[in-house]
Amino acid sequence: MTLAEVGHGLVLIGTGVGSPTQMSVAGVEYATKSEYRFLDGYTSVLGEIDSQLLETQVGTIETLLRNDVENPRRILELAKEELVSLLVIGDPLQATTHVDLLLRCHDQGIPYEVVHAASVTTLVSGGIGLQSCRFGRQVTLTFPVGDYLPTSPLEILCESLFLGNHVMVLFDLDPTGSGDVKPIPMTPEQAVLTLELMAQKLRHDLPPHLNEDELAADDVRGRLRARAVQERLAAPVRQWFGILCSDLGTTEKRIRRGSLGTLSQLRDGEIHCLVIPGELQGLEAEAVEKLIPPA
Amino acid sequence: MTLAEVGHGLVLIGTGVGSPTQMSVAGVEYATKSEYRFLDGYTSVLGEIDSQLLETQVGTIETLLRNDVENPRRILELAKEELVSLLVIGDPLQATTHVDLLLRCHDQGIPYEVVHAASVTTLVSGGIGLQSCRFGRQVTLTFPVGDYLPTSPLEILCESLFLGNHVMVLFDLDPTGSGDVKPIPMTPEQAVLTLELMAQKLRHDLPPHLNEDELAADDVRGRLRARAVQERLAAPVRQWFGILCSDLGTTEKRIRRGSLGTLSQLRDGEIHCLVIPGELQGLEAEAVEKLIPPA
Repeated sequence: MTLAEVGHGLVLIGTGVGSPTQMSVAGVEYATKSEYRFLDGYTSVLGEIDSQLLETQVGTIETLLRNDVENPRRILELAKEELVSLLVIGDPLQATTHVDLLLRCHDQGIPYEVVHAASVTTLVSGGIGLQSCRFGRQVTLTFPVGDYLPTSPLEILCESLFLGNHVMVLFDLDPTGSGDVKPIPMTPEQAVLTLELMAQKLRHDLPPHLNEDELAADDVRGRLRARAVQERLAAPVRQWFGILCSDLGTTEKRIRRGSLGTLSQLRDGEIHCLVIPGELQGLEAEAVEKLIPPA
Repeated sequence: MTLAEVGHGLVLIGTGVGSPTQMSVAGVEYATKSEYRFLDGYTSVLGEIDSQLLETQVGTIETLLRNDVENPRRILELAKEELVSLLVIGDPLQATTHVDLLLRCHDQGIPYEVVHAASVTTLVSGGIGLQSCRFGRQVTLTFPVGDYLPTSPLEILCESLFLGNHVMVLFDLDPTGSGDVKPIPMTPEQAVLTLELMAQKLRHDLPPHLNEDELAADDVRGRLRARAVQERLAAPVRQWFGILCSDLGTTEKRIRRGSLGTLSQLRDGEIHCLVIPGELQGLEAEAVEKLIPPA
């Protein structure tokens, strides 16, 4: 029995990336049937025109910020009696927050359903001619908050590239770290600067877990990461090759390749992410060269 | 200008996973407007009911097997004059074949467009309570053809788990390796057996690139993989913990957890894939325990 037949519960619906026409037929149907519709405006962001188009498509929607999503008492109370949709930009289960929501439904006996959609991961891995199966773990760059700047994203990036994998680098959209303001996506310039700051920190003061001399001889995992960081940082960050994906899923979509230095100077576009390819195999080199223009 | 306005060209459209109602609104629109509609029946497979539903949704569709997709002269000739849709189950750009198609369009000056959808990767990484960002490279198990059984999928699997990543294991659906027959998805039993055969091969005759004694002292990458394989194979394959995802995106969807031995005995379901989790962090352990029933 579907939730629409049950008559109450929570449906998490992915809107896809970019235009709301990327939402699935099933998603539109569920959203239209729902008594209450909310949009998660905290894990991603939708432009003015797309917001209007979305409401034309499914009906009026209330946008929620972080506190409403992470402390979802109101949503859950409503879902005990009525059909409630929470629309999430991209796929609805790529963020921990939404898994947490399902766990709360589970604990409180509220029926739930998930309607998937393409996420930015889908668009990027497929859309730039690289084999999706050759992507390693993705990495997210967060804004430095005061002096606090963990270097683990750069370490994972280096490790993955060293193993020959491609790496997708997502950009944060919350400069305050609080989630309670309208999201402001990181620019390419800020992203490259953040990577440079991490690299500088590692070059200046190598932590023990990346210092081969301080690692046990048989610590193969530690040694791998140390070697990977050392090799990658031999070249300045601005010289690394990357592919910048901007405003995917919209008519303004732009995908460009070049050194991170060059990409960091691009000023157009609202939402970006970056791919740093590992070894290019088979068709990949040809696809990157032909399908992606240089910046 | 969109392709529908141009009036001719090739549109690759993802149908999503399972029911065709997972296709996006934009996808339905493009397919409906197309003069010719094809379905790639070689990289994945659609049930009888879903095929009919798809045709009701967008119009009559011709199903293609491998030869027609890999030697797409007919499709491309048509796309030079008319609007042609190629529907692909899941997301349209997760397989190399479709990237190759775009390259041919590029070379022949045929306009093209891609309409994305959720792929099985999206559904799995989000749908089982594990953080999508903690998945390493995915692995595909192919049917052994005669005596030919490469062990690299098992090696990549071990390496990724050793690094703490989760691993998605996709199953092949072409026992002949030719792509010219209707696909027959691998069963959980065949998949576990294939993993066991690979493990047996490695245990019986360790190749030099996995033998720590034969590796240079500073070959950290080789040593990591050798260690990873050695540690993982210390336990029999049937004792490893896994999550089996069956018929995702359909109303018959089932996700179950247990040892690979137990999972291999499940007989229901048509299309499966397997996740072998790395270290469970944060909410993950709770989500797996509460949201996924034991087999």
